[in-house]
Amino acid sequence: MIKASIITIGDELLIGQVIDTNSAWIAQQLNSIGIPVLRRVAVGDQWDEIWSALDDESKKADLIFITGGLGPTADDITKPLLCKYFNGNLILNQEALENVTHLFEKIFKRPITERNIKQAEVPDTCKVIINKKGTASGMQFEKNGTLYFSLPGVPFEMMGMIEEDILPLLTSTYKLPNITHKTLVTYGIGESMLADLLQSFEENLPIHIKMAYLPNHGLVRLRLTATGENKSLVEKEVNTQFDFLQELVKDFLVTNEDEAMENVIGKMLLSRNQTVATAESCTGGYIAHLISGVPGASAYYEGSMITYSYAAKEKSLQVKKSTLEAQGAVSEEVVIEMAKGLLNQLNTTYAIAVSGIMGPGGGMPEKPVGTVWIAITNERKTTAQKFHFRFNRQKNIQLTAMNALNMLRCFINEQD
Amino acid sequence: MIKASIITIGDELLIGQVIDTNSAWIAQQLNSIGIPVLRRVAVGDQWDEIWSALDDESKKADLIFITGGLGPTADDITKPLLCKYFNGNLILNQEALENVTHLFEKIFKRPITERNIKQAEVPDTCKVIINKKGTASGMQFEKNGTLYFSLPGVPFEMMGMIEEDILPLLTSTYKLPNITHKTLVTYGIGESMLADLLQSFEENLPIHIKMAYLPNHGLVRLRLTATGENKSLVEKEVNTQFDFLQELVKDFLVTNEDEAMENVIGKMLLSRNQTVATAESCTGGYIAHLISGVPGASAYYEGSMITYSYAAKEKSLQVKKSTLEAQGAVSEEVVIEMAKGLLNQLNTTYAIAVSGIMGPGGGMPEKPVGTVWIAITNERKTTAQKFHFRFNRQKNIQLTAMNALNMLRCFINEQD
Repeated sequence: MIKASIITIGDELLIGQVIDTNSAWIAQQLNSIGIPVLRRVAVGDQWDEIWSALDDESKKADLIFITGGLGPTADDITKPLLCKYFNGNLILNQEALENVTHLFEKIFKRPITERNIKQAEVPDTCKVIINKKGTASGMQFEKNGTLYFSLPGVPFEMMGMIEEDILPLLTSTYKLPNITHKTLVTYGIGESMLADLLQSFEENLPIHIKMAYLPNHGLVRLRLTATGENKSLVEKEVNTQFDFLQELVKDFLVTNEDEAMENVIGKMLLSRNQTVATAESCTGGYIAHLISGVPGASAYYEGSMITYSYAAKEKSLQVKKSTLEAQGAVSEEVVIEMAKGLLNQLNTTYAIAVSGIMGPGGGMPEKPVGTVWIAITNERKTTAQKFHFRFNRQKNIQLTAMNALNMLRCFINEQD
Repeated sequence: MIKASIITIGDELLIGQVIDTNSAWIAQQLNSIGIPVLRRVAVGDQWDEIWSALDDESKKADLIFITGGLGPTADDITKPLLCKYFNGNLILNQEALENVTHLFEKIFKRPITERNIKQAEVPDTCKVIINKKGTASGMQFEKNGTLYFSLPGVPFEMMGMIEEDILPLLTSTYKLPNITHKTLVTYGIGESMLADLLQSFEENLPIHIKMAYLPNHGLVRLRLTATGENKSLVEKEVNTQFDFLQELVKDFLVTNEDEAMENVIGKMLLSRNQTVATAESCTGGYIAHLISGVPGASAYYEGSMITYSYAAKEKSLQVKKSTLEAQGAVSEEVVIEMAKGLLNQLNTTYAIAVSGIMGPGGGMPEKPVGTVWIAITNERKTTAQKFHFRFNRQKNIQLTAMNALNMLRCFINEQD
């Protein structure tokens, strides 16, 4: 089986100033065509470290993806190192130069600098991978049967080169096995309880099918992974097990695809030709951000009133001043008035309202940090629920958003 | 110099289903106390891979941080492996058991399961690190002078154990060198141009001070890193260079701290006792999410109207129907009416409004995907600007938000 390693280069990764999202994306792409990733390694901008990472990984993997170290201000380490590692000489590549010139003249519309022209220099032992979205060329090397791809660290540029050049190359070069992943998402049951529920199912899985638990923000994703030579057989087997699994967790099932809660809700609203709007206080636009992040959301998402202050709640949502003063902003009464005011204002099918104290400040004895009220309403029915989260500001915001979306999901289901 | 490696364990990292944020956080913490991270390695839930990662990393590093593989549904690999690797026997640890029991009885208020009790079992060759926020114990091992810390992969739990137990242990055990990072943020100049501007500065830096470029969403962060024995001397030297650097980039300087644009704006508004509100169409709450993500934002952030539809723009922001019909939602006229309507509605010092087409759908010949209008207004002045972004939906949203915040920053500065 062909196996890959990913090496990311950059001091910023080792001082924690940047979170590596490239590796996860590359791993997804490779898995989708049947190439498992064995290891991911991050090293700094240091000659010896990069060199020994290349040595180490080439002992374990058939394909090595290297990202980073190629920008116009890179410390002149990665490219000379690759040149030496693969016994080449640095030459100006005409095709790469034309690409850089084209980008500056036609797209960026800025004067080209010496530094940018230098980016068209590559070792003469590589095959150039043209970067249509930026100035750092990709490079492909071969040594002792191992293929190496060196790509820039800018996600947008790296992604284009992998999608357009490298994946087609790999699928046409190798006979790849079939790896099938099937994922479902549950809500409302903890990881341990779920594991107890699924213990005998898991024990009875065929040896080439594995199950994994991926908990996140109150959701638990369950993933079955099957590997085999015969594509249709592998898929049939994993589908059979997946059907069993769905049946076992049906009381907690959100979706039988690997998709986010906001995508599930988007599909539900689209298929019913319904709309939603949100009124957010403590989550400050995070629910709106999730809902509107789905392409095509404008078909069912009307908008949001983010009302941080009393004044904004009164003016934008017609919450009564007397309710705010008597109950405080974080209360069942206020969150219901917010939801109803919003529904009235925007005439959507559903309205969500949330109000809470996310921390670190703002807690009170009777309403400690983490207290949240969420309401959902439509023309006929209103439901409100109190939550208490025990985490930091960021995680409290995420959990509030996830619970609000889940309440909407259940509310929509009850209407059917 | 004491050096660390980070090993993260989990198949989810190698199929790209999860982005590893733990490593970046751990790296930050270690760097802050003068321990550089040499490498970060991710491996799957496979006995041989974990074993060889432990072998490999212990040849290079003095401290090894291992995260993941310890949850209640973990595949029974990591803990038995550590037990064998460090020549121990699995025993029930009384202190860990009391912690797990306490968590279930007092905090989670759920019945404890066998699976959770098993989590209190640890190798008798480790020192237990109590996990106050979850059921998976941390473990500390020593072998041939190398220290190993095995921690759960749940960020919230892992962070608590590092902050409360491990960092104090490390600072009291080792005499650590001084690593000082100073970071500033620029806006409005590309990486290549910046590098040309700073070429002689960079060439003349003392050998123990390094500069790095970290471009992201139109911002470029510049980081100076100095290492040395004498803390006050190192700090003095880096401060001198940092002052030079600030002077060189002063026309593009956003902040001379390592902080996000929204934090810069928060401080500006707080110190001036001013407020802001946002009206978002295409960014769908992302600007609100950024502004309100700063602790204490309620002191200066009034709220946002997220108006996806024409109707929402008319009702919530008093945008004239005639303007919408004549100019379309993505136009200078509409974005100005949105900003003015919002200012009028919420009586803030400033109002921001954005409207654009983020893609993938919705483009028109005269207004292609990526067309964005941004307006800023206060009582006396209004400014509007057109942008054209060339990226995917997510990146277009991020760039729009960053430009809107930067426009507000410049607008506030002009008022002083």
